[in-house]
Amino acid sequence: MVSQYINRKQKLFNHELTTRLNTYEVPAKLKEAMYYSLDAGGKRLRPILMMAAFEAYSNEDEKVHDPAFALEMVHTYSLIHDDLPAMDNDDYRRGKPTSHKKFDEATAILAGDALLTTAFQVINTSAFLTAEEKVFLSRELSQAAGPEGMVAGQILDLNAENRSLSLDEINQIHLLKTGKLIRFAIRSGAYLGGATPPQLELIDEYATYLGLIFQIQDDILDVIGNEQILGKPIGSDEKSKKSTYPSILGLEGAKKNKEDLMNKAIEALTQAKVDNDLLYDFVAFLGNRDR
Amino acid sequence: MVSQYINRKQKLFNHELTTRLNTYEVPAKLKEAMYYSLDAGGKRLRPILMMAAFEAYSNEDEKVHDPAFALEMVHTYSLIHDDLPAMDNDDYRRGKPTSHKKFDEATAILAGDALLTTAFQVINTSAFLTAEEKVFLSRELSQAAGPEGMVAGQILDLNAENRSLSLDEINQIHLLKTGKLIRFAIRSGAYLGGATPPQLELIDEYATYLGLIFQIQDDILDVIGNEQILGKPIGSDEKSKKSTYPSILGLEGAKKNKEDLMNKAIEALTQAKVDNDLLYDFVAFLGNRDR
Repeated sequence: MVSQYINRKQKLFNHELTTRLNTYEVPAKLKEAMYYSLDAGGKRLRPILMMAAFEAYSNEDEKVHDPAFALEMVHTYSLIHDDLPAMDNDDYRRGKPTSHKKFDEATAILAGDALLTTAFQVINTSAFLTAEEKVFLSRELSQAAGPEGMVAGQILDLNAENRSLSLDEINQIHLLKTGKLIRFAIRSGAYLGGATPPQLELIDEYATYLGLIFQIQDDILDVIGNEQILGKPIGSDEKSKKSTYPSILGLEGAKKNKEDLMNKAIEALTQAKVDNDLLYDFVAFLGNRDR
Repeated sequence: MVSQYINRKQKLFNHELTTRLNTYEVPAKLKEAMYYSLDAGGKRLRPILMMAAFEAYSNEDEKVHDPAFALEMVHTYSLIHDDLPAMDNDDYRRGKPTSHKKFDEATAILAGDALLTTAFQVINTSAFLTAEEKVFLSRELSQAAGPEGMVAGQILDLNAENRSLSLDEINQIHLLKTGKLIRFAIRSGAYLGGATPPQLELIDEYATYLGLIFQIQDDILDVIGNEQILGKPIGSDEKSKKSTYPSILGLEGAKKNKEDLMNKAIEALTQAKVDNDLLYDFVAFLGNRDR
């Protein structure tokens, strides 16, 4: 059921992409680079989580489309900059050349800058949001993506290369680097859908667990995943001596940690009185995914 | 009088810098890099123009401080990314090592990303702005700084290297690369101060002229400036065969063009019924500056 939902939303999202980008008057080369990375076949996990959280509290759905698109722009910018030679120096992502390989480094840096900035433009020019909603989204997105969130996680991650991390350190990095944006997705979806402040707090808790579950399973798949299904080689973390949940806790310990968090995520949802199956199903979907 | 005003505002701005940055919980190295570039002794032209435009319409002044700070963050991010090896590859700016020389490329890219994102955080967490003002500022800042504004100018400028430009092309690049953010400064200052929509339109016109005047004088100083006063070598545009106003129009033609724009800027202000001397004085101050 989750996977059908995801497929449907992915199609919708990808269908809207060209139309949306065409509303902006942007130099051809820059627009091409922005489009290239946005179109590079991501899972659209963050916007889809936002939509699912929104639908847990509301029936209409126009309100959530602009923020969801903005969020995917921020995620895409972060991938373009992370892939740069000065950062992770990756030539391929999902089998396609990364932005600086397809174009050049200057274009990749500017395409990232452009996507990040346009995310705030998309939110603040939306025809479906009130001023208060725009302020909520702009404030929380900047907090989640900026130097108190994703960018902090990225610099801590870069500085952690080639040394062993404690469990606390690795939790901290992932809570910032991927967790904050996943939390933003779910929290803003619920907020836009009309969740009450106490519900939002419990949804926050759920979202924080979900981000960690996603990351732990990522690490586990790099040890025991099927390369065919995964679409990329396994064992890369061990080869680069990267600290991961399995390297710190052992494979069984990492699985146990993940299952604990899966139970806690379900518990938080139950307390938030969410009666929408989708958000429950995402826990098992992300926790047990094989790619 | 303008220069006294500028000195006073610069001191105020630089004094606030540390206090403001300390309100954010950011990893030490990232905060250091953000602070280093923000503190690198810029003229603070953009925030000061915003304050001056604000004061042309209003007496209290708390409202304008957060947006002015956000604007300087966006300007600073653009300098950090412009200086990168993949872009202009500059080792020094105002006599100090550029961010990627002082730190490293990854830190410079992330410090730029962080400053850009924090600008929207500063606006959207301000205690002095209404929701409508935050939306106005976020929308117009993203339009001015993003792929329809400054980033567009930067990519057009990079793609223009090593070929001759027409006057239209060079106007276009500067209107986007520096003009849009200067226009944002003045337009938002006036808006926050309470300018009426027709006044805003005329202020827009003034701001657009002022941005071009600033740039033409930049080009002129690179031909006939005094290296001692300017604090940097002259003749760099000719050496790099860059198209400039003097290279297209000749030195006298460039001066004439600048003077025409100075008259038009004054005319627009008069029509906007601005009776604040400061904005008038900025025309001569920027048009006749020797550094």
